[in-house]
Amino acid sequence: MCMLENCIFCRIVKGDVPSSVIFENDLVFSFLDIHPFSQGHCLVIPKQHFARFEDCPPDVVAALAQALAKIAPLVVQTVQAQGYNLLVNSGLAAGQVVEHAHLHIIPRCQGDHLIQHSPTIQYPPCRMEEISNHIRELLH
Amino acid sequence: MCMLENCIFCRIVKGDVPSSVIFENDLVFSFLDIHPFSQGHCLVIPKQHFARFEDCPPDVVAALAQALAKIAPLVVQTVQAQGYNLLVNSGLAAGQVVEHAHLHIIPRCQGDHLIQHSPTIQYPPCRMEEISNHIRELLH
Repeated sequence: MCMLENCIFCRIVKGDVPSSVIFENDLVFSFLDIHPFSQGHCLVIPKQHFARFEDCPPDVVAALAQALAKIAPLVVQTVQAQGYNLLVNSGLAAGQVVEHAHLHIIPRCQGDHLIQHSPTIQYPPCRMEEISNHIRELLH
Repeated sequence: MCMLENCIFCRIVKGDVPSSVIFENDLVFSFLDIHPFSQGHCLVIPKQHFARFEDCPPDVVAALAQALAKIAPLVVQTVQAQGYNLLVNSGLAAGQVVEHAHLHIIPRCQGDHLIQHSPTIQYPPCRMEEISNHIRELLH
C-alpha cells in the first residue's frame, strides 16, 4: 500500500500522528477534523495515498462513499445537528489544502450559515448544449 | 424502480422534463444544473427516488461516487477550470432544496470565491473524545 512519509494523513492512518478515530476498515479511515467548521466535522480518507478524489480506484471510491453514507447520519445524531454537507475540495483552486484525497462531513443546523455560495449565473445561448455535448463526447 | 410523479428529478430521469444530459447508466443520471454557480456545474443523481444521500442503498452509493470520480475531471477539462468541489446538501438545514438525493460537481477557478465557509471553531476540553467515542459506539 502506497503511503508517503511526509503526508500528514498517511501518518495519521499509520498511527504516527494521533487522531480522534471514528471509523476504519481495509480501505478507509475516518477521524474528527482538528480545524472544524462545527462540532462533529470529520474527514473520511482512503488509507492508501491518492492525491485527489478522482485518482482513487473504483473500489476505493465506492468504499469512501459507503463509509460516508453510514457515518454521516450518526455524526448528525451524536452532535444533535439537523443535517450535513459532504464536501470534497479537489485541487488548490477548490480549496484542497492537504494533498491526500479527503471528504468532509460537516454537521449543519438551521441558520448556522457555515457554508455560503455565490449567486447563480446564467448561461449564454447554446452554451449548455455545447458543454453537455463536449462532456458526453469525452465520456465515449 | 420507485419514482415519484411530483418529483422534478424523477421527471427529469424519465425524460418528462428536458435536461442537458451528460451521463447515464443503470443506476445513475447526470445533467447540467439549470441554476449553476459556475459553467459546467452539474448534478449526479440516483435514477430511483431516494430523498437523502444516506437513504441510497450501498450499490447506488457506490455507483454515484464512481460516476462522480469519472465525470468531474472531464467537466473541469471541458470548461477549462482548475479544480472542483463535490457538494451534497443533506436536509433542509444543510441547504437541500429538492428532496431527491443529488450530488453537485462545481468547477472552480483560482480566486473565484464560489464557496465560502465560516471560521473554524475550537472544541471545549474532552469534547472531541466524547464525540468520537459516541460515534464509534453507534457504529458497533
